[in-house]
Amino acid sequence: MSAQHEVLVVGSIGLDSIKTPFGEVFEVLGGSAIYFSLAASFFTSVRLVGVIGEDFPKQHVELLKKHGIDLSGLQVLPGKTFRWKGNYGYDLNEAITLDTELNVLANFAPQVPDIYRDVKHVFLANIDPDLQLAVLDQVRNPELVVCDTMNFWIHGKRDSLIKVLKRVDIAIMNDAEARELCKEPNLVKAGRTILSWGPKRVIIKKGEHGALMFTNGSFFSAPAYPLEEIFDPTGAGDTFAGGFVGYLASCGQINDTHMRRAVIYGATMASFVVEDFSVQRTSALNQQEIRDRYQEFQGIVHFGE
Amino acid sequence: MSAQHEVLVVGSIGLDSIKTPFGEVFEVLGGSAIYFSLAASFFTSVRLVGVIGEDFPKQHVELLKKHGIDLSGLQVLPGKTFRWKGNYGYDLNEAITLDTELNVLANFAPQVPDIYRDVKHVFLANIDPDLQLAVLDQVRNPELVVCDTMNFWIHGKRDSLIKVLKRVDIAIMNDAEARELCKEPNLVKAGRTILSWGPKRVIIKKGEHGALMFTNGSFFSAPAYPLEEIFDPTGAGDTFAGGFVGYLASCGQINDTHMRRAVIYGATMASFVVEDFSVQRTSALNQQEIRDRYQEFQGIVHFGE
Repeated sequence: MSAQHEVLVVGSIGLDSIKTPFGEVFEVLGGSAIYFSLAASFFTSVRLVGVIGEDFPKQHVELLKKHGIDLSGLQVLPGKTFRWKGNYGYDLNEAITLDTELNVLANFAPQVPDIYRDVKHVFLANIDPDLQLAVLDQVRNPELVVCDTMNFWIHGKRDSLIKVLKRVDIAIMNDAEARELCKEPNLVKAGRTILSWGPKRVIIKKGEHGALMFTNGSFFSAPAYPLEEIFDPTGAGDTFAGGFVGYLASCGQINDTHMRRAVIYGATMASFVVEDFSVQRTSALNQQEIRDRYQEFQGIVHFGE
Repeated sequence: MSAQHEVLVVGSIGLDSIKTPFGEVFEVLGGSAIYFSLAASFFTSVRLVGVIGEDFPKQHVELLKKHGIDLSGLQVLPGKTFRWKGNYGYDLNEAITLDTELNVLANFAPQVPDIYRDVKHVFLANIDPDLQLAVLDQVRNPELVVCDTMNFWIHGKRDSLIKVLKRVDIAIMNDAEARELCKEPNLVKAGRTILSWGPKRVIIKKGEHGALMFTNGSFFSAPAYPLEEIFDPTGAGDTFAGGFVGYLASCGQINDTHMRRAVIYGATMASFVVEDFSVQRTSALNQQEIRDRYQEFQGIVHFGE
């Protein structure tokens, strides 16, 4: 894999305690940068920028290394790793946060190692938009910058978030976030509003209803994979982004068709991650399973001429 | 058009008074059988079974005749036509019913004229499921029976509704109705449950999120057309059914690909009807507009190999 195809990701790394209608786990591997990296690693080389505490279990570091994820940008700070505790009810649409311990994440100042600064593809995972901007100031000449966000930053750091949107090529968010950010119930209008702020593309994720991708000239609607059980939705959005950006990074020249296929690869990876807790399902995947499910998406939308 | 391709529809005919964020109308042409018939008339010959009062405006009868809709099964009873009054808020997802006057619909006993009884395609539009069953008892050997329903009958006549489902080939309903009927939040599971009651196919309409079609062996996801303004959602479901059944009736032999295309024709027709009040948009359509929008759906979902 040449440097041309690498992806730099900055985001959170954490230990999650999660309860869903199907089970409960304590302090499992989580965080936006983790879900992204493992999904992207099936398509390209990933360089991770993030922070952990001294208590971060060694087996998680080994898992990341096993997937070829470059950890030169991983800071280990004195103190404890970021922790999140949440529950899901039966509709599984929204997590109820029971507890958040920022720990070392509270003092995180992302440092992009010099060897990463010429990377061509950058993903700014869900994290404080001021940190996302700090990362953009450290990379030299990226060809593709993609960002994600969440409602917490829409409420608390709207101005910084808009600054991030001005500097990215593609913005990804979910439907509730798009509606809230734009104060607009119609997602088509919300998509156009976000485009007017700077990004060339906007992807709006709709969970069980799939995803929409907007540009000024085209519109793409991707289905969701028909899952009868969503075991744990944690990390679905970051995993979607991992498949999406990972596939694009592997393409070289990127056109609209690549973008559409990338959305389907994102949906493919997200459909796996929700089948089990943490990264258990994605970390155990193989290329054939990914390819097979991608092709199932063809069958789901095809209707001939 | 040969008798082989005709569609028989039974449903409501009414005068609707509607207020949306975009405007307000008083006693305009409405009802499930009307929306269905006008949409289906672009694909096939429609034979309508329904009831009106003596006050039903002549120009509406003329409009139906102009679209070749056969009115031999239209009863005119002493009294007033069915009336419905409703409002929509800014999210336009659900109508708030302000007033319902059943009038002549209260005593409606559908009579299928003898010349209709050999019709090959039957659509049971949203109406009391006992009346839907009465119609099925009067047709001789239909090849395709499709039904719609609504939450009112799920609450009030669940047993009759399940009897209808046992006797139809395809059941159409919206997402909230499917969830409620099956007491199941997951639409994939709800679809399987409905299939287990008898129909060979189930279509679940999801408004702005498109539609899903289930059989025991295949799954199809259709996008919604990206509308920035939904002027008035009234009749969208019946118009969807009109495009769907109308196209199927025009096909002769029906396979899975025809079914998928029919869903897209349904979505196409529904995307037009919501652009204006009543049937103003659909009654003024031409074949080229329908074909062009159908082809836009291709562009919305296409992502290559």
